[in-house]
Amino acid sequence: MRYELYYWPSIQGRGEFVRLALEDAGAEYVDVARLPERGGGGIPVLMRFLESRSVEHPPFAPPFLKAGKLVIAQTANILLFLGPRLGLVPKNEATRFWAHQLQLTIADWVAEVHDTHHPISSGLYYEEQKPEAKRRAADFRTERLPKFLDYFEQVLKRNPKGTDYLVGKAVSYVDLSMFQMIAGLRYAFPRAMARLEPTHPRLVALHDRVSARRRIAAYLSSQRRLPFNQQGIFRHYPELDA
Amino acid sequence: MRYELYYWPSIQGRGEFVRLALEDAGAEYVDVARLPERGGGGIPVLMRFLESRSVEHPPFAPPFLKAGKLVIAQTANILLFLGPRLGLVPKNEATRFWAHQLQLTIADWVAEVHDTHHPISSGLYYEEQKPEAKRRAADFRTERLPKFLDYFEQVLKRNPKGTDYLVGKAVSYVDLSMFQMIAGLRYAFPRAMARLEPTHPRLVALHDRVSARRRIAAYLSSQRRLPFNQQGIFRHYPELDA
Repeated sequence: MRYELYYWPSIQGRGEFVRLALEDAGAEYVDVARLPERGGGGIPVLMRFLESRSVEHPPFAPPFLKAGKLVIAQTANILLFLGPRLGLVPKNEATRFWAHQLQLTIADWVAEVHDTHHPISSGLYYEEQKPEAKRRAADFRTERLPKFLDYFEQVLKRNPKGTDYLVGKAVSYVDLSMFQMIAGLRYAFPRAMARLEPTHPRLVALHDRVSARRRIAAYLSSQRRLPFNQQGIFRHYPELDA
Repeated sequence: MRYELYYWPSIQGRGEFVRLALEDAGAEYVDVARLPERGGGGIPVLMRFLESRSVEHPPFAPPFLKAGKLVIAQTANILLFLGPRLGLVPKNEATRFWAHQLQLTIADWVAEVHDTHHPISSGLYYEEQKPEAKRRAADFRTERLPKFLDYFEQVLKRNPKGTDYLVGKAVSYVDLSMFQMIAGLRYAFPRAMARLEPTHPRLVALHDRVSARRRIAAYLSSQRRLPFNQQGIFRHYPELDA
């Protein structure tokens, strides 16, 4: 199966959680909007699909994945679909619900990270909502960030199959996503993370374990891995990381 | 199967999306935290579970559902689990991913409704973030609310099985959730909704179709249906509905 991923071509964003799963599995895929426009790629192909009035199952927003005739949107839903197909989740049904539950909690966390720099509107620039962003980011750093980190550190600690992975005894798509969270948070909130990491050693070790995986390491050092930047979800504004 | 739902006992909140599915299916369930404390219910039983350090699969937040040995959290994940068991989603796998995708988009919408009155922090009162709430609510009313309504109106319009339901040709848990969205938005933003409803006739008809269902109608007129109030996700502050 050759997958087609549709996502904004200039940011990691929510698409990165899907890219990491495809890369780790060595799946055959095309990152469609990153192809040149002349080659049938670019943002126009993305917009055409979103704006079409004839698509039967329209996505509300990118990312979305085409797998044969199927079109699937919502990051966590895409990973729910890909997990079993890429061998990135255990077979047991109860465990799959647990993995998905963790992924949905990561999705909530991602939305909160986004809202630290855009607490009023995604349609306005950061500079147009800076005082509100400072207040929201302060709450995020002191209340929400520790709460999420504590939660996932506990999930690792309580895994009866060992503390190496979040779900079961082998890597799952949830671990790949957690790597991305730690990496992104380090970029956006280096000071807050430097303070919090020592009390979350299992999460830090998980980040390192994932980044050392052969295909992930190759991906991270390739041109396919976009750098973090000030257009994505994880942005570094020093005033939000006081 | 006798289900146990764990959610805050005084609000509809996210738990209501689960309650509606259980009620429509006539499922046997207990709304645990609404039982008297002496009968093993109340908030303490909820908190005990959330704070326990020995639960193998801890929820990040309510609602969560116990089904035999299984504990499932995240509203959309609970509905993903319940849908097939309650006969509230078609059998076809691709259609189930589509239903779940729509439910996740509803979850995003719910989070945005919440943030209209709490744009800075859930840990602060509304009165402590009122100027920010006014700005965020204005953006919600003029940008986000029409965008979500347009999207779901289109989903109804494009359903090849007819425009009566969002997914396939019979009611699904997604329709029940959409009823709750329309009802909640009418409570919170009556002026904005009065303006927008005429251009979204299929959604309005869906709301009426769901509320006329026998078990839903019985539920809505029972004591089990909590009223909307100023502690839930949908809150009516006239200044946010200018």
